[in-house]
Amino acid sequence: MVRLKGFKELIPIEKALKLFFDAVKPHKLESELVPVQEAYRRVTAKDIIASRDLPPFDRSAVDGYAVKAEDTFEASPFQPKTLKITERNEIGKGEAKLIWTGNPLPKGSNAVVMIEHTKRLNENKIAILKPVAKWQNVSMRGEDVKAGEVAVKAGVRLKPWHLGLLAALGIEQIEVTRKPKVAILATGDELIELGHKPTENKVIETNRLVISWLCRELDAEPIDLGIVGDNETTIREKILGGSREADVIITTGGTSVGKADLVPSALQNINESTIIAHGIAIRPAMPTALAVISNKPVIVLSGNPVAAIIGFEVFARPLIL
Amino acid sequence: MVRLKGFKELIPIEKALKLFFDAVKPHKLESELVPVQEAYRRVTAKDIIASRDLPPFDRSAVDGYAVKAEDTFEASPFQPKTLKITERNEIGKGEAKLIWTGNPLPKGSNAVVMIEHTKRLNENKIAILKPVAKWQNVSMRGEDVKAGEVAVKAGVRLKPWHLGLLAALGIEQIEVTRKPKVAILATGDELIELGHKPTENKVIETNRLVISWLCRELDAEPIDLGIVGDNETTIREKILGGSREADVIITTGGTSVGKADLVPSALQNINESTIIAHGIAIRPAMPTALAVISNKPVIVLSGNPVAAIIGFEVFARPLIL
Repeated sequence: MVRLKGFKELIPIEKALKLFFDAVKPHKLESELVPVQEAYRRVTAKDIIASRDLPPFDRSAVDGYAVKAEDTFEASPFQPKTLKITERNEIGKGEAKLIWTGNPLPKGSNAVVMIEHTKRLNENKIAILKPVAKWQNVSMRGEDVKAGEVAVKAGVRLKPWHLGLLAALGIEQIEVTRKPKVAILATGDELIELGHKPTENKVIETNRLVISWLCRELDAEPIDLGIVGDNETTIREKILGGSREADVIITTGGTSVGKADLVPSALQNINESTIIAHGIAIRPAMPTALAVISNKPVIVLSGNPVAAIIGFEVFARPLIL
Repeated sequence: MVRLKGFKELIPIEKALKLFFDAVKPHKLESELVPVQEAYRRVTAKDIIASRDLPPFDRSAVDGYAVKAEDTFEASPFQPKTLKITERNEIGKGEAKLIWTGNPLPKGSNAVVMIEHTKRLNENKIAILKPVAKWQNVSMRGEDVKAGEVAVKAGVRLKPWHLGLLAALGIEQIEVTRKPKVAILATGDELIELGHKPTENKVIETNRLVISWLCRELDAEPIDLGIVGDNETTIREKILGGSREADVIITTGGTSVGKADLVPSALQNINESTIIAHGIAIRPAMPTALAVISNKPVIVLSGNPVAAIIGFEVFARPLIL
C-alpha cells in the first residue's frame, strides 16, 4: 500500500510518549552473575548483604601510638605524659604501642595518638603531647558496614566505589540485571554497507552505527539486524525475528508517507502488533512511528540521520534508561 | 628509613598541582588506526578531511514531486497549477516527477513539492497547491561537508554522530591517539587479593579495582602491577618497571610518615626520579606524594580507599583527561 497523502494529524510528543509507555508492559529483565571486576555500570538485581563487618577489626586510622585514652587526658606540650613502649599485642595502663595506619588495635587500647603528637624519649619511653578521646583515630569494626546490613541496594548502577566496597567485603560475583537488548534494522533500497563503494544514487548506511553507540551509552546491548531493501515482506520478517531476540526494536527509514509507509505497513501485517502512533508533532522526526509487538516496543525512526538521532533521544532513551 | 615524625609542612593543593604539572613534560601519545566501529570516545590524532561531498548528490528531503520551482510560483489551493507527470529522469517545463526522501533530483528540477501540497488529478496530471522556492526541500550536494573540507578536527573525542558522519563519508579507519596507559601498584603487607580468604589482620586490596575503573571512565588503559609487600626494593623495581611500560604510575599505600615512607623512599632511590611534593594540605589524602620519573608522572596515593579516590580525582584526573 502506498499512501500518497500527508499525515491526517500529528500527535503531540507528550501524548505519543504516554500512549507508548502505557502500551508497553516491560517485562522484568532476568538477572545474571558477573565478576565484580566486570560489574562497572551494571545494575544490581537485588540488595547485596554484607556477610562480614567492614572494617573487619578495630584498626588505626593513623600512624601513631595505640594507648588507653585515659592515660593521655591531661597531656600537653608543656606537660607531656610519659608512657612505656611495649612490643606485646596487649596494652596495660601507662603503656603505648607503635602502630601504622590500618593495623589492628592491640588489646586493651582504645585510641591512637598521631605520631606527630608524640616525642620519643628513648627506646622504652614516649612523651604524649596531646590528649586523645576514646576511639579517636580508630576506624571501628563494622563502622562502614556491619555483617547483615545492606551494602548496596537493588537497582543501583554500580560505580567504581561500589565495586571497591563489594570487593572489600570479599564479594567476587554480583547479581545484576542483564543488559536490555536493542535490535536495529535499517531499511532502504538506496543503502549500502560501509566498505562498499557507493555507486550512483546509493548512500552508505550509518544509522545502525550511530544508534548502536547511543545504545551502548545507555548500557544496552545492540543487535545488528542489518540492511533490508524496500520490501514489506522482508521488513516484516526481520522485525518479527528481532522481536523474538530483543527487548526493544528500532528501525530506520521507510516511515514517511510515500513508499515509505513500508515499515508501518509491515507492522500492520503482524498479528501481535499494534501501532500506537504514526506521525508525531516533532521536526525533524515527524514521520516517527511507535508500535508494540507482544508487549515489546518498536520504534520506527526516519532514515534521515539527524531525525533518527532525535527520534532515538525522544522515544528510545527514556525507555531504555 | 623510617621517619618517626609528621610532615614538616603541608603544600597547598594548587601549589602542588602547579609544581607537578610544570615538572611533567607530557610526551605526545602516538597515534593508531582503529575501525570507525570501534572509535567511539577515542580522540582524533589529526584533522579528518572529507574525500567526497556529503550529500553526494542533490537529493530530496521529502516525499513529493520534483519540479522546476518557477512552475509553482503562483500556485494556491484556490488556483492550483497543473503539471504533467513524467517518469523520465529529466524534467522539462511544466513537468513533475514523483520522488521519495533521499532520491536524487531528476535533471532539470530545482525544488520538491511535498506530497501533502499536491493533488493527483489523474494518471498523468498533478495539481500543485502551494509554491516552492528554488532548492526548497532539497538537500544540496556537499551541503553537510564538501570534499576537501575538514569533517572532524584533530583532538576531538568522537561521539556517535561523528562516527556516523565519518562512515557516511566512506571512512573505514580513523587515526586516533592511543589511550594513555596508567600502571597501578598496591603496597602493603596487610593486603590480600580478592578471592583469597582474609586471615587475621589481613584486608582485601580494592584500590586497584577502583582506580582501574576510574581510569577507564577517563578512557585510559589501566595496567595492573599487582600487590607488593612493604619492601622498598620490590616497590622500587615495580615502579621502575611500570614507568617503562606506562605513561602514568599510580601507587597506593605506604605514603604516610611511619613505615609508610616506603614508596617515597623507593622513589628517592631511583636515579631518574624527582619528588615534587610529599604531604599536601588536603584531608583525607594528606600523605599523597607526587613525583616524576624521566618526565613520567608518579602519583603516590594513600592506602585508605576514600583518600585514594580523592587523591586520584585531584591529582590524576586533570593529568589523564
